[in-house]
Amino acid sequence: MQEVINYIQSNRESYIEELKEFLRIPSISTLPENSDDIKKCAEFVADKLKNAGMSRVEIFKTEGHPLVYGEWLGAPGKPTVLIYGHYDVQPVDPIELWENPPFEPVIKDDKIFARGATDDKGQVFMHIKSVEAYFKTVGSLPLNIKFIIEGEEEIGSSNLEVFINNNTDLLKCDTVLISDTALYAPGLPTLTYGLRGLCYMEVEVTGPNKDLHSGTFGGSVANPINILADIIAKLQDKNGKITIPGFYDSVTKLSKMERDNFKALKFSDKKYAKELGVAELKGEKGFSTLERVWARPTLDCNGIFGGFTGKGAKTVIPSSATAKISMRLVPYQEPKKIAKLFEKHIKQLAPKSVKVVVRSLHGANASMTPLNDKATIAASKAMEKAFGKKTVYAREGGSVPIVDVFGRKLKASVVLMGLGLNSENLHSPNEHFSLKHFQLGIKSSALFFNEYSL
Amino acid sequence: MQEVINYIQSNRESYIEELKEFLRIPSISTLPENSDDIKKCAEFVADKLKNAGMSRVEIFKTEGHPLVYGEWLGAPGKPTVLIYGHYDVQPVDPIELWENPPFEPVIKDDKIFARGATDDKGQVFMHIKSVEAYFKTVGSLPLNIKFIIEGEEEIGSSNLEVFINNNTDLLKCDTVLISDTALYAPGLPTLTYGLRGLCYMEVEVTGPNKDLHSGTFGGSVANPINILADIIAKLQDKNGKITIPGFYDSVTKLSKMERDNFKALKFSDKKYAKELGVAELKGEKGFSTLERVWARPTLDCNGIFGGFTGKGAKTVIPSSATAKISMRLVPYQEPKKIAKLFEKHIKQLAPKSVKVVVRSLHGANASMTPLNDKATIAASKAMEKAFGKKTVYAREGGSVPIVDVFGRKLKASVVLMGLGLNSENLHSPNEHFSLKHFQLGIKSSALFFNEYSL
Repeated sequence: MQEVINYIQSNRESYIEELKEFLRIPSISTLPENSDDIKKCAEFVADKLKNAGMSRVEIFKTEGHPLVYGEWLGAPGKPTVLIYGHYDVQPVDPIELWENPPFEPVIKDDKIFARGATDDKGQVFMHIKSVEAYFKTVGSLPLNIKFIIEGEEEIGSSNLEVFINNNTDLLKCDTVLISDTALYAPGLPTLTYGLRGLCYMEVEVTGPNKDLHSGTFGGSVANPINILADIIAKLQDKNGKITIPGFYDSVTKLSKMERDNFKALKFSDKKYAKELGVAELKGEKGFSTLERVWARPTLDCNGIFGGFTGKGAKTVIPSSATAKISMRLVPYQEPKKIAKLFEKHIKQLAPKSVKVVVRSLHGANASMTPLNDKATIAASKAMEKAFGKKTVYAREGGSVPIVDVFGRKLKASVVLMGLGLNSENLHSPNEHFSLKHFQLGIKSSALFFNEYSL
Repeated sequence: MQEVINYIQSNRESYIEELKEFLRIPSISTLPENSDDIKKCAEFVADKLKNAGMSRVEIFKTEGHPLVYGEWLGAPGKPTVLIYGHYDVQPVDPIELWENPPFEPVIKDDKIFARGATDDKGQVFMHIKSVEAYFKTVGSLPLNIKFIIEGEEEIGSSNLEVFINNNTDLLKCDTVLISDTALYAPGLPTLTYGLRGLCYMEVEVTGPNKDLHSGTFGGSVANPINILADIIAKLQDKNGKITIPGFYDSVTKLSKMERDNFKALKFSDKKYAKELGVAELKGEKGFSTLERVWARPTLDCNGIFGGFTGKGAKTVIPSSATAKISMRLVPYQEPKKIAKLFEKHIKQLAPKSVKVVVRSLHGANASMTPLNDKATIAASKAMEKAFGKKTVYAREGGSVPIVDVFGRKLKASVVLMGLGLNSENLHSPNEHFSLKHFQLGIKSSALFFNEYSL
């Protein structure tokens, strides 16, 4: 084992250079103009898996972006780990806020800056390099490994879900290892055992059949922006509760144990508010910040547009206005059911003077992993050894839409060994990834393979 | 007089060809990239004034776009008419809804389609051609004429206001003639005696210091879009009253006579709603549609933007969101005072969890013209002769910001002889102008010069 760890240690710089290549590919999954980059990125991942020592590597076409599969099954009798990650990234806007171009990686203060650095290319790469370290030193792995790296995580993983349903034998495993979450604090080994789900909707309000002069018509006809604002305002009450009838029906009460665990993490509201540059936090009444982001469902507008959005003034009543509104869900809330409740509520809120179209853009189930699972315990030990500190257990406010699917379809446990940090600007300008955590992640991965094989 | 009218009649086609040239110049005043077009357009107007017979034509530079001045003062002892109009136009977005390119005029069903056709190039051109008709036939005008044609009407006329203040002698006149309003109905001669004012604001709400992942942070921090929606929703109550404290303080009650006059116009809500494609109208409780758009102050969002506005989904809490919000004002409401009340109210509505910046983009006073004014009576007679129908008196919901300035600074009456129609898509895609009204407008202008000179 020490040989593997030493090898990882001595190859720190070359790993970083290879990661830069990965980050240079603008694999934005939501934009049609980047579809060639997506293909190029899938091929890059496949090459890296081959070079790392996987005995079979294949790119699977889907209805959307390709899936990269790899396997090495040379340890009969030993457990099989399926490593999941994604090579696609979020869009880069607002581009003007990036200090360096998003696809030209730059290293500053031992952090690598680029779109996808922490979400999820840097974290995917840790496992490829830990596998490679085994083959370059001891010549084999202590257990069986499969990789499934997708290109549609940022747009809902719908084709991966189809693939899993159709390929449960190919993907058969004992545990799924995923690095797409965050450490609770820098240098603090963390396993995430709960993720929120997602229900992402779009609401389009149409009033008059054309844009109107706001002087000539102002006061006589419903303004779609004002109506949309009214609707959004009514989705939450003054205590931050979501007003959609039935929304909380499947939400379970937080246990005293969990609330106590969260409290023990000594989260600082003051520090958090300062980092975000806000004078005051805001959320659901009766819950702490960690409870709000980890364990309570929430609603946010992710985008809004309508009317004149250029510089200066245009006196127009627009024909329509649109908002993107998403809800984060907790275990037992079903995205499809929530989407229906949302649509019904929106239509009830809209006055007759406008037409409203509600679209469901995507959804994901929340998930929870049992803490006494064998793989989870092995992962906890591996991280403890790599970091030299006791591993803590956390939940996470974000969604990895596919986690719930893996668990249910493959009947495997899911280990969330995230090495990112929430402060690393994922989905924002100047995304970055700590190179110290990158190195600790490669080691944790290698140590996990060993622990879990025992 | 008949000779002038006959000349106008026989030159119908060449007038249309010349108007097309005018409409081909994309003189959008709000966009910096069109500043050369603005200059070109000013020169075009100056050339046309020279060719029409004005003895002095001059382009005055301003801090913004140039002003075109023309005069012929060869009728001593006779009244002086100052003709005002604007050669600038609104932006063209949403460009995809135009059936023909906005700056390539097309004639369909005896209407000319192009940006600026009715607002205001077509209407400015009527007076240039009526003046020309006098010089080409009788060789002189029956009274003195001045023209002042500006390039900043669509962005607030602020430099024209400065020019008027500094050049009251140059612009001295007995009446100001303006064609930038609408006929009450096609073929129905109409004089507009009241215009609403305007107070156009921009509200920018900033929450976190960067865009955040809505999963990781959702529920813990104020979302600028949701806050902005809340603020907008609170600006009007369920009866459509504006909630800004002090907003209605200077608003006078509508007289029974005016309400009766409006009623006599037999406005059809049903037809209006059908034309706009809405199932139901919406406005301030207790007022008819004409009262709402002509004589009551109103509030509309003219634009809103924030977060992800592309196709698909991006799970982001944006750092900021912005709305453009304008209020139409009635006589005695002062735009500057309303802007202050608005700003104060917005700041009171905003929670501590966000920062709010309120900007005043522009303002205009409302105006009213006395119906017993000599020039108004002459205009009424002129239109009656041209149209062969009795002239009606109307108000208008839009603003011609400079009307109030002309009246006060030059101590002149203002005649609003508008030949547009509210259905002609001013400020919208597929703007057009009736060529029948264009021709009637040239005749009304010529007849007015004669009537007013008597």
